[in-house]
Amino acid sequence: MPGQPYMLDPAVEAMPRERLRRVQDARLRAVVQRCYQNMGMYREKFDQLGLKPDDVRSVEDLPRLPFTTKEDLRSRYPLKGLLAVPREEVQRYHMTTGTTGKPTISPLTRDDVFRAEEALARCGAAAGVGPGDLAQLMFGYGLFAGSVICHPAWERMLGAAVIPAGAALPSATQLDIMQEFRPTVLAATPSFLLHIAEVAREQGVPIAELGVQKIVTGAEPSSEETRVKIAQAFNAPIYSDIYGMCELGPHFCVECPHHQGLHINEESFLAEIIDPDTGQQLPPGQKGMLVLTCLMKQAMPLLRYQTKDITVLEDSPCSCGRSHLRVRRIMGRTDDMVKVKGVNIFPSQVEAVIRGVEEVKDSEFQMLVDRSQAAVDSLTVKVEAAQPGPELAAKLKAAFSRAFLGSNLKVELVPVGSLPRFSHKAKRLVDTRKL
Amino acid sequence: MPGQPYMLDPAVEAMPRERLRRVQDARLRAVVQRCYQNMGMYREKFDQLGLKPDDVRSVEDLPRLPFTTKEDLRSRYPLKGLLAVPREEVQRYHMTTGTTGKPTISPLTRDDVFRAEEALARCGAAAGVGPGDLAQLMFGYGLFAGSVICHPAWERMLGAAVIPAGAALPSATQLDIMQEFRPTVLAATPSFLLHIAEVAREQGVPIAELGVQKIVTGAEPSSEETRVKIAQAFNAPIYSDIYGMCELGPHFCVECPHHQGLHINEESFLAEIIDPDTGQQLPPGQKGMLVLTCLMKQAMPLLRYQTKDITVLEDSPCSCGRSHLRVRRIMGRTDDMVKVKGVNIFPSQVEAVIRGVEEVKDSEFQMLVDRSQAAVDSLTVKVEAAQPGPELAAKLKAAFSRAFLGSNLKVELVPVGSLPRFSHKAKRLVDTRKL
Repeated sequence: MPGQPYMLDPAVEAMPRERLRRVQDARLRAVVQRCYQNMGMYREKFDQLGLKPDDVRSVEDLPRLPFTTKEDLRSRYPLKGLLAVPREEVQRYHMTTGTTGKPTISPLTRDDVFRAEEALARCGAAAGVGPGDLAQLMFGYGLFAGSVICHPAWERMLGAAVIPAGAALPSATQLDIMQEFRPTVLAATPSFLLHIAEVAREQGVPIAELGVQKIVTGAEPSSEETRVKIAQAFNAPIYSDIYGMCELGPHFCVECPHHQGLHINEESFLAEIIDPDTGQQLPPGQKGMLVLTCLMKQAMPLLRYQTKDITVLEDSPCSCGRSHLRVRRIMGRTDDMVKVKGVNIFPSQVEAVIRGVEEVKDSEFQMLVDRSQAAVDSLTVKVEAAQPGPELAAKLKAAFSRAFLGSNLKVELVPVGSLPRFSHKAKRLVDTRKL
Repeated sequence: MPGQPYMLDPAVEAMPRERLRRVQDARLRAVVQRCYQNMGMYREKFDQLGLKPDDVRSVEDLPRLPFTTKEDLRSRYPLKGLLAVPREEVQRYHMTTGTTGKPTISPLTRDDVFRAEEALARCGAAAGVGPGDLAQLMFGYGLFAGSVICHPAWERMLGAAVIPAGAALPSATQLDIMQEFRPTVLAATPSFLLHIAEVAREQGVPIAELGVQKIVTGAEPSSEETRVKIAQAFNAPIYSDIYGMCELGPHFCVECPHHQGLHINEESFLAEIIDPDTGQQLPPGQKGMLVLTCLMKQAMPLLRYQTKDITVLEDSPCSCGRSHLRVRRIMGRTDDMVKVKGVNIFPSQVEAVIRGVEEVKDSEFQMLVDRSQAAVDSLTVKVEAAQPGPELAAKLKAAFSRAFLGSNLKVELVPVGSLPRFSHKAKRLVDTRKL
């Protein structure tokens, strides 16, 4: 019944690199012009550097371009100087939510929506998703650039059938649906699949016998061990990971069945690895921060966007036939952001909440991220308190609830002096999860 | 900037009734054949009645057809004898979830998805949604047949831009988005809009000045007073309501700007009003249960489906020019189902939970549905207990949480003998909401 992994668009995905380079050069020149002409942010950045759009002729000139950071976007919330098209051209707004900070907006034109869907259709195709498949989509719908894009892509571009389960249903219900409908494809975050596998074990549901053929994961980093563990639990011969970022594409990578890294959609994105301290480009094979330049984005093309994800670029040929460069699995972050149950949390934001509660405004704190037996992630914030008590705990808990929507956060008051002190760079985050 | 209400498809929506009748006759003959040939349920029902598909020649023969009920669907969970197409033709499964009972499944073929989108595009068009509009979609995404259908319909068929906000974000966040993005269209349940208006009042946000032009509501019944209240709060000149049912179309009505009832999509659905006790057809103008027959549904066409909603059919001409019959606002239910925050709850299900808890298994109970100042609906279950206490309350609360996912349910233990007794038909549900 299920098909084998295939390329949605071999003419692009396996384009000879010389030709690809010419395409990239032309697209880079065009996007740089559009950015400079239409986006206040880039006009400022270019002018500060004394850079003219015409100075950028090819991919070799990439290092001359300014970087773009998440802070640039935040300081221009919602879209000050960030739109490269008239507002009427924006077809849809996705955004990240969930933390105290203002959300990061991802405006998409009609073309951008098409390309976003195409990127996720490529991911599905790389896992063999196609006619005859039934996919249980467990990525979030709504503002999050997940199922709202994946669903039409897989239905219309790949011809698969879809159960729009979403991320909000409890695992037991997801498991019921799996047993009743026997989807051949599961799409979810790795941690949610681990959790479902655990619930199945507790309930004695033989998930290895449900006929799952293909697993597509995304929305959080995971390790090779996790991939193997999930694939084994569901007895799924095919497994593919998606990597994306709301503000960028949103999705820019395809994992082929050879699991030698994720192929970047290089006709739409230029990838660099830089030394996060010096900003210098690093050659393939060296570890550093992934930086991406949008070539085709219409609404909000970003140049040299610092993802803050640490990885390695691979330029060795891949047996799958795709010519596009690969990035290795994400190995860490240059900042201390941590993702707990889909919510991005920064120690600085946790600190801001604590500083806002009178009784503990000068207290030391520590964040412990843990994964339970049942594969549920949790965040415990330990806060030193001179006069601990249930009232203070409840007050802090309420302050966190207001600040971090939907996060499963626990508060623990501990005696003053019991937490570690830092003289230089504070390391208040302790993540004991095995991702 | 925003357009005026229009007809998406005047050739169909304003089709002369004589011609419409010929279309209906032909479609009814075809669907009856398909039901009998392919759906085990209808083969059984027809055979029991000694009815042959050829006996049904026109809309006049409708009363000869058997009724279909929600219980029919439940007893055939998930789709035993309910699919009129091979399973591979199913493009998508929507379903209702949220209560103890098995979900009701709504399988859709590719054509069904198109027609479902078209129905919601008609609703949008009737409210003037089109190019230049930005719609904040606050119906739920996912399994619920709401935003997953409405979103592509409004984006692709109407050319509006969309903020896929969904139903899960808190009202304060929805309000932030409204202030920042100034959507011209809001789509949500009436109770959620009332709640947002209340939050705005508390926070001093002048929602009447945000530039909302069009409000589209749905997913729960509401009164004319509520419509006026919401339209005034947001100062929105256009307001339109959607009426649908997951298992049916899902959507089969369009409210035109004249607010004289909702036009049924009569090229796709036949509507009857019946006496709920005798099952006899009632003429237009008389109150009874709405019964619908699918003419175009491919995956799961239902014949004479008892909606259990009480209303009146109107056949007087409408000034909007649409020729299709109208149903008045829903006036009640033939069963005692109540919708609390989007979750369908039956007293019988509440009873089943209580009967499952040893200490109160023979206790009298009462369900109180209330709407707070801030327009938040809540359900309180009062249960008589000989030995009340926090432990028993917690035990009951946990049992309800397992049974009714996502419902905001309170448990109150009361002395034995304090609740009303019923000798005949128990009336354990007290709904004090002004809908």
